[in-house]
Amino acid sequence: MKIIIDAFGGDNAPLEVLKGSAMAVEEYGVEVILAGDQEKIKQCAGENGVSMKNMEILHASQVIPVEADPTALLKEYSESSMAVGLKALKEGKGDAFVSAGSTGALVVGSSLIVKRMKGVRRAGIATVIPSAGGNYLLMDAGANAECHADMLVQFGVMGSVYMKQLMGIANPRVGLVNIGTEETKGLDVQRETYHLLQKAPVNFIGNVEARGLPLGECDVAVADGFTGNIILKLTEGLAKFLTGELKEMLFQSTKTKLGALLIKDSLAGFKKKLDYKEHGGAPLLGTAKPVFKAHGSSDARAFKNAIRQAKTYVENNVVSEMETALAQLKTKEAEAAPKAE
Amino acid sequence: MKIIIDAFGGDNAPLEVLKGSAMAVEEYGVEVILAGDQEKIKQCAGENGVSMKNMEILHASQVIPVEADPTALLKEYSESSMAVGLKALKEGKGDAFVSAGSTGALVVGSSLIVKRMKGVRRAGIATVIPSAGGNYLLMDAGANAECHADMLVQFGVMGSVYMKQLMGIANPRVGLVNIGTEETKGLDVQRETYHLLQKAPVNFIGNVEARGLPLGECDVAVADGFTGNIILKLTEGLAKFLTGELKEMLFQSTKTKLGALLIKDSLAGFKKKLDYKEHGGAPLLGTAKPVFKAHGSSDARAFKNAIRQAKTYVENNVVSEMETALAQLKTKEAEAAPKAE
Repeated sequence: MKIIIDAFGGDNAPLEVLKGSAMAVEEYGVEVILAGDQEKIKQCAGENGVSMKNMEILHASQVIPVEADPTALLKEYSESSMAVGLKALKEGKGDAFVSAGSTGALVVGSSLIVKRMKGVRRAGIATVIPSAGGNYLLMDAGANAECHADMLVQFGVMGSVYMKQLMGIANPRVGLVNIGTEETKGLDVQRETYHLLQKAPVNFIGNVEARGLPLGECDVAVADGFTGNIILKLTEGLAKFLTGELKEMLFQSTKTKLGALLIKDSLAGFKKKLDYKEHGGAPLLGTAKPVFKAHGSSDARAFKNAIRQAKTYVENNVVSEMETALAQLKTKEAEAAPKAE
Repeated sequence: MKIIIDAFGGDNAPLEVLKGSAMAVEEYGVEVILAGDQEKIKQCAGENGVSMKNMEILHASQVIPVEADPTALLKEYSESSMAVGLKALKEGKGDAFVSAGSTGALVVGSSLIVKRMKGVRRAGIATVIPSAGGNYLLMDAGANAECHADMLVQFGVMGSVYMKQLMGIANPRVGLVNIGTEETKGLDVQRETYHLLQKAPVNFIGNVEARGLPLGECDVAVADGFTGNIILKLTEGLAKFLTGELKEMLFQSTKTKLGALLIKDSLAGFKKKLDYKEHGGAPLLGTAKPVFKAHGSSDARAFKNAIRQAKTYVENNVVSEMETALAQLKTKEAEAAPKAE
């Protein structure tokens, strides 16, 4: 299996990308195609003693800045490591693509270069977030600020397949993020989505309030990208705030410092549980081939984990499983539609 | 000063309401008017030895259930403790009203019985939430799921006055909750609100991402009620999840249990910081007279704190300060509007 990597995406590129790729080659037996400036990659690997075993380089002269307009990927940045990597995926040079670069550019580029699966209205970013029950998948985590009901239903169907195939949950509980549990709650788009999800080929458990997300009330949380971004970012901020407060508390006195020493190992486990780097990457669901967004601040371990995820995604035929589920959704919708006289 | 209390609102009514009221009478020197069933109140106070000093009862034969349609407050539940209390506030029998009953009914009842301040489009619920910097005010926390830009701007202006007058922040930083910091981010309503807030008589600091809220990036967070509800409920759920995980971690082994013992006092301080009961009540901003929503699960201490807040609100003339600020907003908007030829 060949995984294409954007060697110049993220805050720690290219060194951490190279190190993570080398770890993945070693641990998972994959081959890696690095998209990026050939000279710089070789120099960085050489200076830092990173093995290039089972890695090849696909030269790309540019890097798209995070602040660039996403559509610039197809114009002034068409020779960037991200654009070159996506084109290589489209052409079948590799099986999946991983980038820690601009989310907006990756979403636009994937839709326009790699294209979407048949019938998919929009591709969205799915993010796995820790919860009391283990994890839940948030879809969409920010790609599409405004969503129609038919997009949200597809998010639920694709998210369900993902949790089944990649996280091993037999019958994922799909919840619609809303401001109350009754089906009349929310805005028109939530009310319409509620009824469509009831008829969709998923285990729809109804509306889920935001309070229930970290408490493990569902396995797939369906939301528009605006709400999803609020959920993702607030989760990050609160985890940072609370661990900061906790740290301050543990260093208050000699007594608490001694206490901190005794709970040190358990505390490390606690932090690990909340660590997004364990999951590594967020898949773009809806693209015709597997694309993963790694966190902008990813280190080598995060890249390695993102590559592992991409490998599992390919091995489990997630794309074709999603296509089957989406075809079922279409059939069910056609059956439910009022017949012409 | 007389504070009117809904004696039958919330999960712990009437006992905790009575106890909290008695504590407030004692500590803050206020008088209390209890709206609710006269016999039941007297019996409950008698059986539990709660002093009725400086408290009078305003008889109300009904209680509106939390699940009732909010508009039922004006029809089949017009004799409920909430409706009777709101009417007493309108008639000037007391200076402020506190209820832990149905949020929806309180919002509808306040707008229709007590009425809104002149020029206010909608009343919203403002909630004080702990953050790294101390606290921030979230407005609207869930009263109006869908908001227009002119409503959001008023929320910012009223929230700013609240943080200045009640929390002693000289020049509150008002932020617009959005999915990015650039002014082009979000949906049309955010983009329009951004430009209106730039001209409003507040210290507008621009868009704030959800990540920045718990990290203390603003003092007033302006959001529509859908987004606000997501923020409020997710904060509750995450605090519960993380403290639960922390507790589990502390009881993992004999060693960690010993550690837990050493950090016990500091841990209590940590929990107190995250405790909504310290703040007691969420004000409805925009009503012509002070109305406070106490949390449904409020205990005596939460009621006492809500009464303290109501007292401070009245003493600081928050309503008239808001009216002045809203008049300034109107003047500025008129100045900024294109003149007719």
